[in-house]
Amino acid sequence: MSVDSLEDWRRTHYSNKVNPSLDGKKVTVFGWVEDVRDLGGITFITLRDREGLLQITVMRKKIPEKILEKISMIGRQFAIGVKGTVRSHGEAPRGVEVIPEDIKILATATHPLPLDPTGRVPADIDVRLDARVLDLRRPECRAIFKIRHAVVKEIRRFFIENDFIEVHTPKIIAAAAEGGAALFPVEYFEQKAFLAQSPELYKEQLTTVFEKVFEIGTYFRAEESHTRRHLNEFVSVDMEEAFATVDDVMNLQEELTRSIVGHVAKACPAELEILGVSLKMPAQRFKRYAYTEIIEELRKRNVEVKWGEDIPTPAYRELGELHKQEYYFIVDWPSRVRSFYIKPRDDRPELCYAFDFMYEWIEITSGGSRVDSKDVFVSRLKEQNLDPKSFDFYLKIFDYGMPPHAGFGMGLERILMALVGKENIREVVLFPRDRFRLTP
Amino acid sequence: MSVDSLEDWRRTHYSNKVNPSLDGKKVTVFGWVEDVRDLGGITFITLRDREGLLQITVMRKKIPEKILEKISMIGRQFAIGVKGTVRSHGEAPRGVEVIPEDIKILATATHPLPLDPTGRVPADIDVRLDARVLDLRRPECRAIFKIRHAVVKEIRRFFIENDFIEVHTPKIIAAAAEGGAALFPVEYFEQKAFLAQSPELYKEQLTTVFEKVFEIGTYFRAEESHTRRHLNEFVSVDMEEAFATVDDVMNLQEELTRSIVGHVAKACPAELEILGVSLKMPAQRFKRYAYTEIIEELRKRNVEVKWGEDIPTPAYRELGELHKQEYYFIVDWPSRVRSFYIKPRDDRPELCYAFDFMYEWIEITSGGSRVDSKDVFVSRLKEQNLDPKSFDFYLKIFDYGMPPHAGFGMGLERILMALVGKENIREVVLFPRDRFRLTP
Repeated sequence: MSVDSLEDWRRTHYSNKVNPSLDGKKVTVFGWVEDVRDLGGITFITLRDREGLLQITVMRKKIPEKILEKISMIGRQFAIGVKGTVRSHGEAPRGVEVIPEDIKILATATHPLPLDPTGRVPADIDVRLDARVLDLRRPECRAIFKIRHAVVKEIRRFFIENDFIEVHTPKIIAAAAEGGAALFPVEYFEQKAFLAQSPELYKEQLTTVFEKVFEIGTYFRAEESHTRRHLNEFVSVDMEEAFATVDDVMNLQEELTRSIVGHVAKACPAELEILGVSLKMPAQRFKRYAYTEIIEELRKRNVEVKWGEDIPTPAYRELGELHKQEYYFIVDWPSRVRSFYIKPRDDRPELCYAFDFMYEWIEITSGGSRVDSKDVFVSRLKEQNLDPKSFDFYLKIFDYGMPPHAGFGMGLERILMALVGKENIREVVLFPRDRFRLTP
Repeated sequence: MSVDSLEDWRRTHYSNKVNPSLDGKKVTVFGWVEDVRDLGGITFITLRDREGLLQITVMRKKIPEKILEKISMIGRQFAIGVKGTVRSHGEAPRGVEVIPEDIKILATATHPLPLDPTGRVPADIDVRLDARVLDLRRPECRAIFKIRHAVVKEIRRFFIENDFIEVHTPKIIAAAAEGGAALFPVEYFEQKAFLAQSPELYKEQLTTVFEKVFEIGTYFRAEESHTRRHLNEFVSVDMEEAFATVDDVMNLQEELTRSIVGHVAKACPAELEILGVSLKMPAQRFKRYAYTEIIEELRKRNVEVKWGEDIPTPAYRELGELHKQEYYFIVDWPSRVRSFYIKPRDDRPELCYAFDFMYEWIEITSGGSRVDSKDVFVSRLKEQNLDPKSFDFYLKIFDYGMPPHAGFGMGLERILMALVGKENIREVVLFPRDRFRLTP
């Protein structure tokens, strides 16, 4: 290795946490050039790294010609290393500037770039997604994905502290866990297989081993609808618990939501500020509206939903207007609009122990008590025109001691939309997949 | 709800942490019947729950006839609830027994079961996997998956504390990230798509935004080989870091491995004991053997590997014999046997900055410094007979300031095999997928 290698630079005062406490100290920093402003005797290089922006102040008279030459070659989005001295500077980002002694160009960028990664020139969502890795450099995007990281971290902490075991269930499956529709077929050697839509029937059986399980995994739905809240590949946060009922898991959903909001507010104040979001801690108890109340509420707003039918998208939009900044549950759904694995109510079997957990117009979570009897499971399949034979692998489980159990599946992207105040789910996914988008 | 509902049972002294500190206290427990032994005046029910076994001691004279009737109906693997009083009992599991006052049958089991979930009757791996949810009830299986949970938890802690951001990259892709072979095709609406083999090219570009990223995700390889260390669906632990070299990420792998071993030893002593494993903390530094040394070592054992060829399976078996209980690296690989995205050495381009991280015969991790120049990337593709056009989406990234970077992908199941001492990877996956197994 040459004495000027990357290794040597990394080993000499490398820091990505430059702050005023390093005033007067030597430092090596790496990052991308956001801007270069030449004011004659002084040149300002704005460097972006994982922590944000950093000002490099070049006093042209005090620096060797060789280094000035390198600086003259630097363009926006070049990756560079800077060796220099930290100086406190109240008005600069992070309260410091770096006075460079040496500069190393690590990578160039070819101009014009397809979009401006500083975010100063607004671009259409499709242009942004086409050059996503540039788009992600915008402060707003970086803020969203730092919040996403914090949310996932907090969800795991919550489940682990509540004695749940983390599991990984198959993503390639032989039969549909959620009914036959909307499955992506996979060529699996000589066999026909599908991509899993959810871990539902796997997590249910695992409750007979571990009682409390959770999974954060990628799932797939081949839904053709191209909306602002659907993607064909998404991350689902699933939990399932033996000896629990729908009420237990709704209570858990409340606690989890409050934990997430609390953690994000505490861990990501700078990111929330960039996004212009002020998070409010939701109430201890979230309201539980019966399906019948909800369609009555909609009727008063002249949106007709026939009892026993699912709630269509325009009606959800109306609910968003009625429940501004509110987390709430919709319970007591008609059995026939909910999955076959949801348990009908003991007292009124036309209703079932299902819930949706909502924020404004967004369905964040679906859950409920599950069927724990083979006979009921088979009738539910038949009611929904599904062939019990395709579920043979699962029907066996009822012979092995399947107790009452309940759980939910929360869309990670859905709760993120609620938290960061985005209306398009594509904003909260690094590389979204929809009906028409398979790249980058 | 009736006064005798599951909810009421749960709300009355429910605990899944029964221990001697509860001596004399009322308790409600739920679990599965592992065994019932009737000794005349006294009946012992062995209950299994998430924490292990629990003894229920029925004094037949002191219990109402109605409850004795229920007890007479109980079979193995039934799910039941028990209300009773805890009594210290030095010789019973967890140091306690429960004297029941009431019993609730929550689910039955149909006998004979396809295998014995107590583990007393050994069964073939295929029989076990066919009835996996019963097999998983064996103490050995539960121990493995509690260790798996601990390992995943520790990996995340390690990366998060080292300033890595957790990302989720696409699992459905338009082009092969690892070359054209061994991809599962997916019917994606009107388009042809594939299942991702790794997050490689996504994590690499994300280093230009977040610098340090990690992902723990499910990936897919359509390899036809049916071996004890390959699965077609697996969980990969990936990290990638900007401004880092192969040495930096090998150091990180060492630290990570030591963290994992330390955490499992501390968090799972009971599970390790069940498995008969005593973990030894690996040395601070793991040995780094050059590829050339390794094939020389093999030659001495009469296993010929021609220089420039990949190491075949039987040779790995031999390495396992030579490196018993050793974690080690193989470095300085011939460029032509490593992926096109691995950087050739500056001084000797026939070698490259790749490493494999090994335990005995198991390749746990592959990693290295990545190509950061468009020209080199295109030549590497051509050398390996791949069409640069299929990589257009990625070639663009080199125009956006792509600095030097390095990373690795660790097989979660591979490190688990090393930790729990299993020779068949299927033992450490809940529901494995191989060439011939797509169910349950």
